[in-house]
Amino acid sequence: MSAQGEEAFVAWLRRKLPKPSLVGDDTAELVLPGKPGRLVATVDQQIEGTHFLPGLDPRLVGRRLLRVNLSDLAASGARPRWALLALGLPAEQDPRRIVEGVLQDARRFGIALAGGDIAHADELTASLTLIGEKRRGDASLGRDRARPGHAIWAGGTIGESALGCELLVRGAGLHGRKVDLSSLEESKLPARLLPAARRAVLRNLLPEPQLELGRWLARLGKRAGAAIDLSDGLGKDLGRVCTASDVGAEIDLRLLRRATPPRFDELAAAVELDSLAVALAGGEDYVLLFTLPEPISPPARFGAKRIGRITRERALSLLDRAGDRHDLPQIGWDHLLPE
Amino acid sequence: MSAQGEEAFVAWLRRKLPKPSLVGDDTAELVLPGKPGRLVATVDQQIEGTHFLPGLDPRLVGRRLLRVNLSDLAASGARPRWALLALGLPAEQDPRRIVEGVLQDARRFGIALAGGDIAHADELTASLTLIGEKRRGDASLGRDRARPGHAIWAGGTIGESALGCELLVRGAGLHGRKVDLSSLEESKLPARLLPAARRAVLRNLLPEPQLELGRWLARLGKRAGAAIDLSDGLGKDLGRVCTASDVGAEIDLRLLRRATPPRFDELAAAVELDSLAVALAGGEDYVLLFTLPEPISPPARFGAKRIGRITRERALSLLDRAGDRHDLPQIGWDHLLPE
Repeated sequence: MSAQGEEAFVAWLRRKLPKPSLVGDDTAELVLPGKPGRLVATVDQQIEGTHFLPGLDPRLVGRRLLRVNLSDLAASGARPRWALLALGLPAEQDPRRIVEGVLQDARRFGIALAGGDIAHADELTASLTLIGEKRRGDASLGRDRARPGHAIWAGGTIGESALGCELLVRGAGLHGRKVDLSSLEESKLPARLLPAARRAVLRNLLPEPQLELGRWLARLGKRAGAAIDLSDGLGKDLGRVCTASDVGAEIDLRLLRRATPPRFDELAAAVELDSLAVALAGGEDYVLLFTLPEPISPPARFGAKRIGRITRERALSLLDRAGDRHDLPQIGWDHLLPE
Repeated sequence: MSAQGEEAFVAWLRRKLPKPSLVGDDTAELVLPGKPGRLVATVDQQIEGTHFLPGLDPRLVGRRLLRVNLSDLAASGARPRWALLALGLPAEQDPRRIVEGVLQDARRFGIALAGGDIAHADELTASLTLIGEKRRGDASLGRDRARPGHAIWAGGTIGESALGCELLVRGAGLHGRKVDLSSLEESKLPARLLPAARRAVLRNLLPEPQLELGRWLARLGKRAGAAIDLSDGLGKDLGRVCTASDVGAEIDLRLLRRATPPRFDELAAAVELDSLAVALAGGEDYVLLFTLPEPISPPARFGAKRIGRITRERALSLLDRAGDRHDLPQIGWDHLLPE
């Protein structure tokens, strides 16, 4: 089963569920009979060794868990309200640090911790359910709302988190807000790459959920397109949108390059990664990937980048500088598979 | 930290949270501004080796997870509506069986699976969030609503699940709906105890959440008392009610005996357990423990048993046959501690 991956499992699950099913997007809309507006709910996990390296500061685990989950809520256009936390942890581990991390960012994002459960487990596992609210008239930003001719947008830069992850694997650390690159296993990075490397590590550990952008998209109402958050890599997440919407997509390589962070190619080369592969398949950037009918474009303050367009033809393709088309591989993280 | 247990952790958490806090009971009430009624949310976990024996049929793990969590919702008086499931599981394990178990009982209890997450973990961990609804005028059945003079009620029999757990540890099994006692490690049980033993095993694996009783209690409105579900043992759970309500309690041993299942003493003796200790400290019966002002009593169809009364004096005591008082030990399961 695990070799078939998460997609096959979700397909199986959708066949098992009564129709219409709430499962498919990363969030579900809960309609309360006779009441205006609706609730949105989502659940996500952080498991030691799967989602983060063993030994990561538990406070960071808590903050990251909340932020990653908020990113799903952002993609639904909801305003976050409540969180419920389930913790499994080894006997010797203090549960307070991870909860402090969750609470620190819960305050920042205006969320109340509404419940929890704590139990013994051999490895640290944390799952968080978030419940948010949407207003009457807000768009449903499902994956199935991309239409041919829509522009494809990334809410911010792409690929940075995967480079940060690689730096962490190579020994980078975080002390407070300060990224420590002194113990990188390989030869040191050149000085000009240090600021970009620090940003990449922070981006991986503490992603910024694009809640305001999500709210802006939801308020477009009937004019809104599809939205998803970039968790598993551009190729894979865009593939999900296209499958759900029964459309294809064309990514413009020149536009994609402008959606990578400064010194991206150089930093990728320094850690021996192919920058294009990282931009296409590197996950965990947690910016929104969304589509909009032309000529709607998001306000500049969000820093969103147009990277391509939705096509009627059901293929994912990459347009190179010369205007030639290539297949866009649907590769990326699959959280069901062990690393 | 873990040596201090779950209570100390919750006390720490309550100090950290802004007031009024939603954390304290097993469920939290989520009030939607400007809307009648309210939502109730709760999260619970089942972790291999902590909450169930390794090797338990994953379908049963799923059904048990849902039922145990529904019991928390029952204690809040809510009607269950939605579930969100987070699964961590080893690469070789098929996630479909546990999900099938959740879905089987979700249908029975009228719940929609609204979301999920699945990821690799070294041991099977499953956490489930449930969201239910309450109507305008429904009572808040908090732990803090017990008052001196209230009668103390158990929603059903007590101690049976702990005997079932002991039988499972000794080799009992379940095949379909059939309890298999043939491979019990010790000498075989006498034939007259087999029906009671089978019921005890089923009770432990597939508890019946008292949702209808919870709704009945909630509809009492202002006349309702406190409610909690019996998950960690009578002594411990009653202690929680008394602490939250700033009262004491007196359990009548003669009444408590009537709240144990048929052949309870004999079956306890057969597995070398003290029946009174099991009734007071054995957990996971998942009936409601609630208080009611006299002379209100629940309809006979619920099978609830009166077992004592709430006192002004802040002690937990046990009244023996002779009318003498003894301290009631607040012992019971502590899920934070490894077994």
